[in-house]
Amino acid sequence: VRPSRRALSVSQDRLTEKTFLADLGLATAPFAAVADDGELALALAEIGLPAILKTRRLGYDGKGQARIDRAEDAHAALAAMQGAPAILEGVVAFTREISVIAARDLAGDVAAYDPGENAHRDGILRRTTVPARLSAWERADSALIAGKILNALEYAGVLGVELFVTPQGLLVNEIAPRVHNSGHWTQAGCAVDQFEQHIRAIAGWPLGDGTRHSDVVMENLIGEEVSGVLELARKPEVSIHLYGKGTARPGRKMGHVNRVTGPAHRP
Amino acid sequence: VRPSRRALSVSQDRLTEKTFLADLGLATAPFAAVADDGELALALAEIGLPAILKTRRLGYDGKGQARIDRAEDAHAALAAMQGAPAILEGVVAFTREISVIAARDLAGDVAAYDPGENAHRDGILRRTTVPARLSAWERADSALIAGKILNALEYAGVLGVELFVTPQGLLVNEIAPRVHNSGHWTQAGCAVDQFEQHIRAIAGWPLGDGTRHSDVVMENLIGEEVSGVLELARKPEVSIHLYGKGTARPGRKMGHVNRVTGPAHRP
Repeated sequence: VRPSRRALSVSQDRLTEKTFLADLGLATAPFAAVADDGELALALAEIGLPAILKTRRLGYDGKGQARIDRAEDAHAALAAMQGAPAILEGVVAFTREISVIAARDLAGDVAAYDPGENAHRDGILRRTTVPARLSAWERADSALIAGKILNALEYAGVLGVELFVTPQGLLVNEIAPRVHNSGHWTQAGCAVDQFEQHIRAIAGWPLGDGTRHSDVVMENLIGEEVSGVLELARKPEVSIHLYGKGTARPGRKMGHVNRVTGPAHRP
Repeated sequence: VRPSRRALSVSQDRLTEKTFLADLGLATAPFAAVADDGELALALAEIGLPAILKTRRLGYDGKGQARIDRAEDAHAALAAMQGAPAILEGVVAFTREISVIAARDLAGDVAAYDPGENAHRDGILRRTTVPARLSAWERADSALIAGKILNALEYAGVLGVELFVTPQGLLVNEIAPRVHNSGHWTQAGCAVDQFEQHIRAIAGWPLGDGTRHSDVVMENLIGEEVSGVLELARKPEVSIHLYGKGTARPGRKMGHVNRVTGPAHRP
C-alpha cells in the first residue's frame, strides 16, 4: 500500500502529526493534548489566548474546530467536541498561508512544485495563486521542509504541506498524504500535474521535475457558486473541473476552475 | 446526436467528403471515383501519375491505400481493394502537412486552435509540432477553412482538418469529425484542451478561445516504442498518456507524450 500505513496514521491524528513534525525539528504552532477541562486549563495557560481547540481526528474544512478567545469560552469549546480526543493549538500570527505539493518516488527521489498561496474563507480553501509572494529563502525552505517530511515518512506518492509564513520563518500547519486541493493548479500550470505525478511516484516511474510553465489562479466552486460556471467558462484561459456531486450544499466543494494568468514568472 | 449524422456520413466516405469540400470551393487533391479497371484507366489519364488508390470507406493510418507509380501497377492496386468502392487521388507536391483542430458550439460560435505541423511515417502520425512553420496568410487561411467546414456541416463539437501546405495555397486532405490525434498537444499547451472543448461544444457551454500558452511537441508511441516510456518520462516537461492497450503490435498507437518546449511564441 502506497503511501504507507505510517503516513496515514501520522497524518490522521493532529497530535501524532504535530509530534512527528516537532520531532523532525520543524516549527509548528504551539500545541498540547487535551482530554478534560483540567488539561485544557493547563494547555491554555501554556499556549495563551487566542487558541483553537480541534478534534484530533476526522476534522477538515474547519469542521471539528472551536476558537477560544476568552478563558470562559473554554468549557463550552471542549463540550462541543462531545468527548472526542482533542488538541489545543496556539493561533499563529502569519502573513500568509502557502502550500507545497511534493512527491517522493520508490527510488527515494523527491520533486516539489512551486508553493501556492492560499486564501481561505470560513475555514475552506477558496483560491490558490501561483507563484506565491515569498522571499527566495522562504521558497527554498518550503521545498526543504516538504522533502524532510517525505523522507522521514519514507513516503511514496504526492503529499501536500500547508505552511504559515511568519516573520520568524515557516511553520508547518498540516500535512495531507495525498493529492491536494491546493495543488489542482498544476493541471493548468505544469506538464506533469499532481495526479500524473502521484501515479508516477507509486508506479516506479521517474518523477516530473515540477517545472511550472504558466502562472495560474485556482478557484474552488463552493456550494451555489457552481451555478456560475458558465460565466466563468466564458473567460479566456479558464479550464473547468466539476466533481459531479449532486447537491450544492453550502460549503461543499463542487468543482474548481484554473485560470492561466501568463507565462511562468520567477519572483 | 452531436456531431450530426450528416457530419459522419460526409466524412466516412472519401468520395462524399472530397465532393463536399469541392462544393464548398475548397481546394483538394484531384480525385475521381473508381469502380473498375476502365474507370481507373480514365481516372489515371485525368489525374496523372503518381496517384493513390484508396478505399472510399474504413481506411485509416495508411490502411486500404495503394500508391500507383506506373500504369502497369493499376490493375493490381485495384484488385487489392477486393471489390471495395475506391477513389483515385492525385499525389500532391506539398511542403508540409498541418492540421487545424476547431470547434463549433450549439450557438454557432467557432474557435480554432493554432495549426500543428504533422510528421508521418508509414502513413501514421508520428509527431505534431506547435507552432507550425507557416506564413501569417497560411495560418489565417487554415482557421477560415476549418470554420467554413464547421458551418457548412452545422457542426457541434470538435473536428480536425488535415491540410497540405503547397506553394499554391492550402489543400484539404481529410476531415475527422472528432477530437484528433494531431490535437493531443492541446492537453499541454492550452488551458482548455480539445477534450474539454468538445464537451463544452456539445453541452451548450461557451467554447474556450483556443489560446495557446505553451509551445508543444506531441509524439506518438507506436508499437514497441511504448517500452521506452520510462526514458521519456525522465525528460523535464514531458507528460505521458498511455491508452492501456494490451499488445504493442507494429503500427499500433499505444500512447503519446507531450513535451512543453517553451512559452507560446507567435511566429
